[in-house]
Amino acid sequence: MFSSAFRRYLPVFDWGRNYNKDSFSNDMIAAVIVTIMLIPQSLAYALLAGLPPEMGLYASILPIILYAIFGTSRALAVGPVAVVSLMTAAAIGQIAESGTAGYAIAALTLAMLSGGILLLMGVFKLGFLANFLSHPVIAGFITASGVLIASSQLKHILGVDAKGHTLVEIVVSIFEHLGEVNLATLLIGVSATLFLFWVRKGMKPMLLEMGLKPRLADVLTKAGPVGAVVVTTAVVWIFGLDQSGVKIVGSVPQSLPPLTMPSFSSELIGALFVPALLISIIGFVESVSVAQTLAAKKRQRIDPDQELIGLGAANIGAAFTGGYPVTGGFARSVVNFDAGAETPAAGAYTAVGLAIAAVSLTPLIFFLPKATLAATIIVAVLSLVDFSILKHSWSYSKSDFSAVAATILLTLGFGVETGVSAGVILSIGLYLYKTSRPHIAEVGLVPGTEHFRNINRHEVLTSPQLLTIRIDESLYFANARFLEDYIYDRAVDDDCLKHVVLQCSAVNEVDFSALESLEAINHRLQDAGIQLHLSEVKGPVMDRLQRSHFLDELSGRVFLSQYQAQEELASVCTRQTAQAPA
Amino acid sequence: MFSSAFRRYLPVFDWGRNYNKDSFSNDMIAAVIVTIMLIPQSLAYALLAGLPPEMGLYASILPIILYAIFGTSRALAVGPVAVVSLMTAAAIGQIAESGTAGYAIAALTLAMLSGGILLLMGVFKLGFLANFLSHPVIAGFITASGVLIASSQLKHILGVDAKGHTLVEIVVSIFEHLGEVNLATLLIGVSATLFLFWVRKGMKPMLLEMGLKPRLADVLTKAGPVGAVVVTTAVVWIFGLDQSGVKIVGSVPQSLPPLTMPSFSSELIGALFVPALLISIIGFVESVSVAQTLAAKKRQRIDPDQELIGLGAANIGAAFTGGYPVTGGFARSVVNFDAGAETPAAGAYTAVGLAIAAVSLTPLIFFLPKATLAATIIVAVLSLVDFSILKHSWSYSKSDFSAVAATILLTLGFGVETGVSAGVILSIGLYLYKTSRPHIAEVGLVPGTEHFRNINRHEVLTSPQLLTIRIDESLYFANARFLEDYIYDRAVDDDCLKHVVLQCSAVNEVDFSALESLEAINHRLQDAGIQLHLSEVKGPVMDRLQRSHFLDELSGRVFLSQYQAQEELASVCTRQTAQAPA
Repeated sequence: MFSSAFRRYLPVFDWGRNYNKDSFSNDMIAAVIVTIMLIPQSLAYALLAGLPPEMGLYASILPIILYAIFGTSRALAVGPVAVVSLMTAAAIGQIAESGTAGYAIAALTLAMLSGGILLLMGVFKLGFLANFLSHPVIAGFITASGVLIASSQLKHILGVDAKGHTLVEIVVSIFEHLGEVNLATLLIGVSATLFLFWVRKGMKPMLLEMGLKPRLADVLTKAGPVGAVVVTTAVVWIFGLDQSGVKIVGSVPQSLPPLTMPSFSSELIGALFVPALLISIIGFVESVSVAQTLAAKKRQRIDPDQELIGLGAANIGAAFTGGYPVTGGFARSVVNFDAGAETPAAGAYTAVGLAIAAVSLTPLIFFLPKATLAATIIVAVLSLVDFSILKHSWSYSKSDFSAVAATILLTLGFGVETGVSAGVILSIGLYLYKTSRPHIAEVGLVPGTEHFRNINRHEVLTSPQLLTIRIDESLYFANARFLEDYIYDRAVDDDCLKHVVLQCSAVNEVDFSALESLEAINHRLQDAGIQLHLSEVKGPVMDRLQRSHFLDELSGRVFLSQYQAQEELASVCTRQTAQAPA
Repeated sequence: MFSSAFRRYLPVFDWGRNYNKDSFSNDMIAAVIVTIMLIPQSLAYALLAGLPPEMGLYASILPIILYAIFGTSRALAVGPVAVVSLMTAAAIGQIAESGTAGYAIAALTLAMLSGGILLLMGVFKLGFLANFLSHPVIAGFITASGVLIASSQLKHILGVDAKGHTLVEIVVSIFEHLGEVNLATLLIGVSATLFLFWVRKGMKPMLLEMGLKPRLADVLTKAGPVGAVVVTTAVVWIFGLDQSGVKIVGSVPQSLPPLTMPSFSSELIGALFVPALLISIIGFVESVSVAQTLAAKKRQRIDPDQELIGLGAANIGAAFTGGYPVTGGFARSVVNFDAGAETPAAGAYTAVGLAIAAVSLTPLIFFLPKATLAATIIVAVLSLVDFSILKHSWSYSKSDFSAVAATILLTLGFGVETGVSAGVILSIGLYLYKTSRPHIAEVGLVPGTEHFRNINRHEVLTSPQLLTIRIDESLYFANARFLEDYIYDRAVDDDCLKHVVLQCSAVNEVDFSALESLEAINHRLQDAGIQLHLSEVKGPVMDRLQRSHFLDELSGRVFLSQYQAQEELASVCTRQTAQAPA
């Protein structure tokens, strides 16, 4: 009992026992590659979140270790990611001015809240809540966030001051400051961006052509951003470009992650709760889908509820060691996986690498231009932008399309929180709306078979005394009255009608409201001299109906099959419907 | 075109053209009976809403006439009702102190907002939104409101000052003031209550026994509350009990409904918007269910969207003529119907009767004790209280039960707005939760038939190479990942498995998220050397799948029937499952 609970909450004891030299060397190599990639990325995402660069490094150290202990994915790399950094900026930007102490404390508090929410969700096994973020909403949100992030970084490329959490605000603000563009910054920014795009697309093929081994070509490609950092830093230092207005990172404390204290002010917690909830859920969804994709490739499984605990621990760790909200990132996890990481220990070695960087390398980035970091972000996030979801969802389903379109437009127009909330609410609302007006078909017998089909689509046999209705939805409160209205409209003025059969083959549930509607239909039809019958009622639905008085009061019968109902109820004079007129 | 729009929005032209002498005399008799009943009731409900008594009368005059013009029910009587009066008190009690001018203006504004919301819902045909209030939630809410209302009136019976919008607040407040009980008030209140209960239960049988005609017995019974009003007023006047602390109605202006102006302050409108929305929806639901019940008895139909317009017009009328939010009441409508009202003109005659009362009778109620009005309310609302919904929903469905129980507890504990909102959110949440973890059965062939049944419930034939899964739910974003997990758990470690068939007979929809999950399942199974097939896919679902690439990529086939799939896929060595172990 103790041991199983222990292993549920501490997966480290699962893989730790079989750890050997091979695993160590594989993990070590992966850690070196990931560390090289993470140094510029962590600095850059901190910039995106409006925080001092070292907070990006700190957010990648203890959280990685905590995730290695509590998480279930063997390849997931936890740390700052683009979308969560943007959401962090949006959330705390409403509370304090970037650069102030209050802003940094709000970031710590947000991480603590987010960690607490994730932990609670894990303990209460609420991971399923993430399922209410539909795929199209996530895709739309990620795409719109990518656009927002890229445009928010333009100011660093141009070397101007600009603000805003929505696309319009950002664009307007950049236009207002267009006169202040700094040419040296622009040059560095544009060159770095072009270089990084080339690193992504053209560098590896070139290196392979030059005869390098694929593994080495890979490592060099991953080191591309570091190259950009080194070169642009050197250029700024040598030519003293910081004197010409190129904004640099400046002095960064040379230290291990400090012990920090988030705020426990109830006012701040109240203001940050909803953003923290959204960040938790979005971060969890991003993290779990990466982890599942990677686990599937090795036929491993992850446990989503334990993932919540792993991510929760990581965020709480971030809150107390100078970080900000973190999650499992796509790019870094894929790199970790491709580099051969075997166990979460690779993450721990990465943490050590980043700790060394935080202690020893920070003086070297004094002259690092912010434009280079912005270029890193832009190149990273533009790979997230994919508007094809609009086209695909349009051709498949208009309601999915409207959820995507609303998510994209509202994210761009009103910011990340509004966008994702509206997407979730709209997709749930559309689902409820659809189920509230279910497809109901009047069916008849296909001649020579025992099959029943829609009379408007097929040539079928019907009888004037018998009306058979197939409801293609579970019956519940939202559609109970719809069914009542449908039957009254159809049945009440039909003088020949003697029997109404509800074919329930697609009815997976009948709730209490629907039960009352069925009772009302039964009485109303009975008053009109019409019997109500059911056919093909599913086992669980029947079990439940038997616990009510409905079956005692039912004027007609319950038939096992619709064919049986037709056989017994239809008069001899069945008539044949014409092929569908409409 | 013009004429049809005209008749859609003005049903009065429908029934008005055929109005004749018979209809007139029937409507007139009904109007007299209803007027007698409404005078004390209107005064009482105004007291419940914390408003001056005349506002109850005013709220029954113009609104009735406007509903007669725009509404579709022939028997519905519109005016102040108990639950809406309680909700009004709860909403405006947070804004102003009862008895102040601000309080009355807030009531007018609430009526205007509520009318506006109802009109807009009618114009945009949003009547279906009311369907999201499930029957159990409504039943629980009405019962809890009845308890709240009755307990809120106890202070008038006891003659003490007490406050509160929740059961605990009310009870505590009454206990705190228990030392101040006024004996004369208590005597009047208790006698009036007992008398009115007797009028409900025992008076009509007694009158009939005494040989009165049923019609006359009916009218006298309806006049019971008027009797209580006359007698207790006389007692207070004769014995000068108002000097002994019996609270009386006091001076009421002797006038037709005045022209009044609601406030257009955006602050007030902002504060009242959500309460107005809840009042609109609750009032609409109450009104429509009464109207539908009565219409059904005469095989008439009502149009819910036009009802919204009728009720909206009535509320706007109330806002400008000194009233407060109104809706179609159960008691008054049933009395109107039973008394033989044939057309909405009966309502107009009632309005005339009440206008005469407002002009001529108000001086007579100067000495009317508030305790008598409270007794009228208590007796009326206790008939709404019915806790049996708890028992019925418990035996039928635990999730319906929890929605009812939460609605009742939260209404009693935190007031009407919290209660009904929580009920709606919980019932939608539970529905979504259930559909997010659908019933999935592994099925096999019932020997000697073409039917497939759950292998855990029936003795069926299966094959080790073939796994058939029946999903009893539409596939959408909330359950897409659940299905993925189920299939991976079941299929991934099964080395014999060659084919997985999804039997889709109960799948009414496959949304974009579910489509992506199906694609993922297909690829994942393909990687494991397993083919994925579908069977019994419904027409509309198939139409949609054909618009995606899924069917091109599907490793297996789509079978028209599950039997066909079994025939073609199962190896010769089928095995027979034992009868269900669990």
